[in-house]
Amino acid sequence: MDIEKIRNDFPMLKTKMQGHDLIYLDNGATTLKPKAVADAIYEYLTCYSGNAHRGDYDLSHTVDTAFENAREDVRRFINAKRVEEIVFTAGATDSLNMVAYGYGLTHLHEGDEIILNVAEHASNTLPWFDVAKKTGAKIVYAPLTDGCVTLEGIKSVTTDKTKIISVAIVSNVMGYVAPVKEIIKFAHEHDIIVVCDGAQSVPHHITDVIADDIDFLAFSGHKMCGPTGIGVLYGKYHLLDETSPTRYGGGSNARYKSNLEVDMKKPPYKFESGTPNIEGAIGLGAAIRYLEGIGMKDIMEREAKLRAYAIEKLKALDNITIYNENGTGAIAFNINNVFAQDGASLFNANGVAVRAGEHCAKLLDEYLGVRTTLRASFYFYNTEEEIDAFVEVCKKGDDFLDAFFG
Amino acid sequence: MDIEKIRNDFPMLKTKMQGHDLIYLDNGATTLKPKAVADAIYEYLTCYSGNAHRGDYDLSHTVDTAFENAREDVRRFINAKRVEEIVFTAGATDSLNMVAYGYGLTHLHEGDEIILNVAEHASNTLPWFDVAKKTGAKIVYAPLTDGCVTLEGIKSVTTDKTKIISVAIVSNVMGYVAPVKEIIKFAHEHDIIVVCDGAQSVPHHITDVIADDIDFLAFSGHKMCGPTGIGVLYGKYHLLDETSPTRYGGGSNARYKSNLEVDMKKPPYKFESGTPNIEGAIGLGAAIRYLEGIGMKDIMEREAKLRAYAIEKLKALDNITIYNENGTGAIAFNINNVFAQDGASLFNANGVAVRAGEHCAKLLDEYLGVRTTLRASFYFYNTEEEIDAFVEVCKKGDDFLDAFFG
Repeated sequence: MDIEKIRNDFPMLKTKMQGHDLIYLDNGATTLKPKAVADAIYEYLTCYSGNAHRGDYDLSHTVDTAFENAREDVRRFINAKRVEEIVFTAGATDSLNMVAYGYGLTHLHEGDEIILNVAEHASNTLPWFDVAKKTGAKIVYAPLTDGCVTLEGIKSVTTDKTKIISVAIVSNVMGYVAPVKEIIKFAHEHDIIVVCDGAQSVPHHITDVIADDIDFLAFSGHKMCGPTGIGVLYGKYHLLDETSPTRYGGGSNARYKSNLEVDMKKPPYKFESGTPNIEGAIGLGAAIRYLEGIGMKDIMEREAKLRAYAIEKLKALDNITIYNENGTGAIAFNINNVFAQDGASLFNANGVAVRAGEHCAKLLDEYLGVRTTLRASFYFYNTEEEIDAFVEVCKKGDDFLDAFFG
Repeated sequence: MDIEKIRNDFPMLKTKMQGHDLIYLDNGATTLKPKAVADAIYEYLTCYSGNAHRGDYDLSHTVDTAFENAREDVRRFINAKRVEEIVFTAGATDSLNMVAYGYGLTHLHEGDEIILNVAEHASNTLPWFDVAKKTGAKIVYAPLTDGCVTLEGIKSVTTDKTKIISVAIVSNVMGYVAPVKEIIKFAHEHDIIVVCDGAQSVPHHITDVIADDIDFLAFSGHKMCGPTGIGVLYGKYHLLDETSPTRYGGGSNARYKSNLEVDMKKPPYKFESGTPNIEGAIGLGAAIRYLEGIGMKDIMEREAKLRAYAIEKLKALDNITIYNENGTGAIAFNINNVFAQDGASLFNANGVAVRAGEHCAKLLDEYLGVRTTLRASFYFYNTEEEIDAFVEVCKKGDDFLDAFFG
């Protein structure tokens, strides 16, 4: 991996923050965009900005082709069997809501159980809360072991009432990889559907929905070098077929009559009412081809190396608490005796972007025993030198006020 | 209005279709984008592509500011009282679904009545069908007079069971302007809420939600020089306050607990779960400032002139049926004895983009007595010369096969 060449692909890596070269370690929130993605979007906007409605003229055909090519890019990237299993959404949050309301609401009954865990993101928690309230289903939390979802934890709360398990493949705070393949195997033996939140895994790992036998998978474009406002819902075709749309409108219906008779199209179109995010899909396709050009295996290995390097450096300091030393993704930590928000300000003053807060996983504070943490999250374009600079700032946290105002 | 200067702002107007200069008359489907919009999006992607999460570092603050400035651009453009009344959505379809499911589903009871009409777009029809089925409410169609919604038509079907009127300000096929202000005045005297589909009006007319006393207004960015994947739901604050979100997730909640207690933020944030379409909002803001720079009054006048010119030219031909001579927006027409789809192919062969079909208003065929029509829809950057070329193609329709293969 030619890291200098790669870094040259990202215009943002040439920007400054507070007079320092930007060190961007908030990749869990959103990633930077390679020029190829920005260019693909610009090209759509300036060279073929038509609507995608299975067109009546060449321009519209061109748009259709680009849009559907992006769908094929997504299919290939996650190894789905059929391109019809790829639904474009507004983002992972939208995708998860589509499963909760489109599948959960119509398939769950009073007393049924949905297994979550307290490390899940709000977007994989709150839709299920609402569906549970509306159906009378029950939310059950799988216990975590050292912050991680385990097969044993899932088994320990599974009953003959369990209908759905919804789980992040990689937790956005804890950064642990859930044993999804094993969980799914167990779940399917008990006729349980497994919904996977891939927002933090798809950008960083090789995804194979066939090998893992994933039922539903949600992820976002902007966390994998793509634009915001675009995401994906993957579903096995027969599951999508029995999932109701959560939005109705133009493009998704075959016909309807004034007596309320409505014939919807087949998946994925029945879920894509209204003009879709066309440049979003095109940008996501460009992002996928960019990631494939580098190679997801190399990306995984590089990120693992970067994380190990950062953990080693942080452990050598005596003023840092690490909450997930053995994770694989983001590092959750605090500078001792410094509020997380103040810590983020200190990093900002030194040109380092890290995030402070509850990271949209607000049930986790009970588990961790701290209300807020700092989160440093890497992507393949980060470097050991950036981590060194980040660690230098951690050291300054010892005397935060002096460091900040000095 | 310096039309040459304006046309220079649109890179698409320099492209070709089938070897001819592109004549783009499908503005009802989507509009072309000025370079300023593409540039604003490119700038976000390459110069400050952070997430908007009320940031922990300067980059994130910069994004927040740009995103919230775009919200203020929208507020000013439609003259809303408060910026909190502007909700960013994925498009007009998403906005209309948010009203139907977030307000209709929670406020309608069995036997309540929703007034629509057969000229409405699928996106302002099908969500209400579904809500009617779920609540036991009834869909009632206001009669059209010469294809247009009238106050008298609305009055004739209003009963003490009427709770919601949902109406397009400008029909996407018929192009008529509904007397929305009068309808709303009447509706409010009877405690009826009026939902306005502004997808075809906001891009072309001066919108004043205060003067018209609009309750809810939905529109899309991409039909007004902005990007796809972004739209707006305007709602009076107290109505938004009693509207339920249709998506739950990160960013929209203040706090929640494992016992299913959830405190949502106030509008507009409670509706904006997950990372929003940041570059979409920024692009829409740029589009609005571009339109304001030209002036909406001038845009209205120019489009009226263009339409009148086209109608006059078309009427001089003896092979054209016009379905909405007195409209103000799109022209719905057919070339006699030529299927609409074949007509569109003929136009395409001559570099003219017009749309054929049911235009997502599939109840209208019963009313018009034709299954499909051609639709030519203008924007301020179109010219009389383009209309002349368009009319020349209409003439060729007399002998379609010769013209197409000749």
